[in-house]
Amino acid sequence: MAQTITEKIFSQHVGREVFAGEIVRCDIDMVIGNDITTPISISAFNLSGAKELANPDGFSIVLDHFIPAKDIASANQAKISREFAKKHKLKNFFDEKDMGIEHALLPEKGLIVPGDVIIGADSHTCTHGALGAFSTGMGSTDLAFAMITGENWFKVPQTIKVNLSGKPKEHTTGKDIILEIIRLIGVDGALYKTLEFTGSTIEHLNMDDRFSMCNMAIEAGAKNGIVAYDDVTKEFLSDKNLAREPRIHYSDADASYVKVLNIDIDKLEPVIAYPFLPSNGHSITQAVKDEIKIDQAFIGSCTNGRLGDLKVASEILKGNKVHEDVRLIVTPGTQNILKEAYRLGYIDAIIDAGGVVSNPTCGACLGGYMGILGDGEVAVSTTNRNFVGRMGSRSSKVYLANSAVAAISAIKGYIADPRV
Amino acid sequence: MAQTITEKIFSQHVGREVFAGEIVRCDIDMVIGNDITTPISISAFNLSGAKELANPDGFSIVLDHFIPAKDIASANQAKISREFAKKHKLKNFFDEKDMGIEHALLPEKGLIVPGDVIIGADSHTCTHGALGAFSTGMGSTDLAFAMITGENWFKVPQTIKVNLSGKPKEHTTGKDIILEIIRLIGVDGALYKTLEFTGSTIEHLNMDDRFSMCNMAIEAGAKNGIVAYDDVTKEFLSDKNLAREPRIHYSDADASYVKVLNIDIDKLEPVIAYPFLPSNGHSITQAVKDEIKIDQAFIGSCTNGRLGDLKVASEILKGNKVHEDVRLIVTPGTQNILKEAYRLGYIDAIIDAGGVVSNPTCGACLGGYMGILGDGEVAVSTTNRNFVGRMGSRSSKVYLANSAVAAISAIKGYIADPRV
Repeated sequence: MAQTITEKIFSQHVGREVFAGEIVRCDIDMVIGNDITTPISISAFNLSGAKELANPDGFSIVLDHFIPAKDIASANQAKISREFAKKHKLKNFFDEKDMGIEHALLPEKGLIVPGDVIIGADSHTCTHGALGAFSTGMGSTDLAFAMITGENWFKVPQTIKVNLSGKPKEHTTGKDIILEIIRLIGVDGALYKTLEFTGSTIEHLNMDDRFSMCNMAIEAGAKNGIVAYDDVTKEFLSDKNLAREPRIHYSDADASYVKVLNIDIDKLEPVIAYPFLPSNGHSITQAVKDEIKIDQAFIGSCTNGRLGDLKVASEILKGNKVHEDVRLIVTPGTQNILKEAYRLGYIDAIIDAGGVVSNPTCGACLGGYMGILGDGEVAVSTTNRNFVGRMGSRSSKVYLANSAVAAISAIKGYIADPRV
Repeated sequence: MAQTITEKIFSQHVGREVFAGEIVRCDIDMVIGNDITTPISISAFNLSGAKELANPDGFSIVLDHFIPAKDIASANQAKISREFAKKHKLKNFFDEKDMGIEHALLPEKGLIVPGDVIIGADSHTCTHGALGAFSTGMGSTDLAFAMITGENWFKVPQTIKVNLSGKPKEHTTGKDIILEIIRLIGVDGALYKTLEFTGSTIEHLNMDDRFSMCNMAIEAGAKNGIVAYDDVTKEFLSDKNLAREPRIHYSDADASYVKVLNIDIDKLEPVIAYPFLPSNGHSITQAVKDEIKIDQAFIGSCTNGRLGDLKVASEILKGNKVHEDVRLIVTPGTQNILKEAYRLGYIDAIIDAGGVVSNPTCGACLGGYMGILGDGEVAVSTTNRNFVGRMGSRSSKVYLANSAVAAISAIKGYIADPRV
């Protein structure tokens, strides 16, 4: 019977054909924890009486949220993961050495492979669907179950087919496409469903775009976002030492979808999600009319902290100066991205324009550190959430945008259009 | 009558010969505040009813402690300085643009000039004495007095002549010399006195060494540390657009000193200040014997976050790996130092070895953010204070050292000797 890519991934893992709605239990290829969530998983693991991890090489811990420690509590919290990683001789433990934001770092390390079933105790674990894997966020105790058994249970999700047609115009990116999708369907528009991104647009989207799109699937309530393997995926994986053999699946033409969403990307312009929901999208044209003065521009996070983000930002900033009333903070996703951005002159251009470049960290995105907003402050940010108080004070406001918009806005002092 | 360099600086500012013990009131050339101390000064300034700064170009605000904002309180605190700087059109306001640690940034900007009288609401303002200026830390309300009047009062300090002879051996630096001095005289050994660094050693010390030495004068309780202008100073200033004409003074051969300290540097080896006082110095040979296991190595701060520190660290780290149990955090003093360190390959070497390189910030040194110590953790640090809880948990321990010691210790996992 015809299947979606997500159904095929589960079928392969379960060993029989399974379909949306079925509850299945299967092996997990990669379990991911971070400095905030892993200690709770470790506590549950210990309470269970378990002594060994079911699949040590299939467990990654990435310390990325509050590291290097922003305070004593963060330092003590990180220590719990460090001690566990040492005790269990974890191969995939990423501390301050070679550090990065988990959803940028793990694909770079070849630990995310097409066809995988991946869970992570971080809501943006759905990012990894960009590589043709099933990847979803779970709670810390769900993670513990997988640490102990190597498995977990899932209700195979129904799929919304997002049929994207046309070629994105300059400065319209994966970020804008996903913001548009969330605008159309709302923050609960894909509740416990798969967002399967397909259509003629896909071949025009690089991996950075695809990661951004899958990353924000959760902002529509989706269980996972997914893009099937193609030449762009192949190229991205070509220089990586993959942890497993890729298992490549494609949705059948007559697979069953709960909904089909047709979106013409030809007409899409950069989208700005106004406070206080990612679904509160407005066109950049509207945003410019609204004359939104900003105090801070932030470029970074698991959504938009990749090399392409730093490239476009540096191109816009080069030879310009950040507006006197604006702080620009740029946080690369990983040390490799940072080093490469330096090699290519991006970092110099950003610093010369007046931006601050931090070490890789989740920091500012979740109001952790490294660019927290004060009372009444307004930010344009390439991150994924603009809830009340997300990046600091409850009276601050966050406008979500792509990196080009953030960069040009940093120069202009208000939300501006990078195309003009 | 014969005078010390400090007496001469005050005499020039007062307009008559003044000597140690006299209370004088004089113009201030540069008043310095930071993100933590300036808001209190501004509050006092406003309470006084003053409308204008007496000398706007002689007032620098550097946001460096908790910026980019580590939390909401820091964000709100920074806003006070930002608004004041904007209102008073401050030329010397340093925010996240072109940011740096105040005592590294201001000399780089040409705002510290030989012969100046400088006050700052930061105890390490004494750093600037390395350029042949009188520079001292004061409280925030003392700062406000200078903001309002352009002046302040001083008791001209008595001077301890520190007569340094011999040439430092490899990996024995200004940091080691000042740690040795503090070991000899104690943390109150120079209370309200000038530490005047002189002798045949001085010509062998570069500006980085001299800044380190004057920086830690306060750790012996000194009012100021000072090194007279020479070819090294001249060379440092040669590419800078100086804010004022240098006024060069030298102590008279028969000037009156309260004490002369003769130290033979030929014999000095790297010094490690054990917890919990900067005066608790031990030789590196002793420290190696003591097998001090570390969790973190920190290279940075107004004491040792300069280009020379990053250079020696990168040379030691190149081709090596940070020990698996150690985090290495490197925080350059300014954006220029960071950019230059990238250009010279230092940053790549540090990252490749497993170190994290942050943006410029005071951060970790004072337990602010970016590398806080957890319970029971041990750090070797190039900073200036190792008091209980200085860099985090009250049960953590900080060993003060030079950058070469910190780098080699990061590799070895315990406090190690860079000379072997």
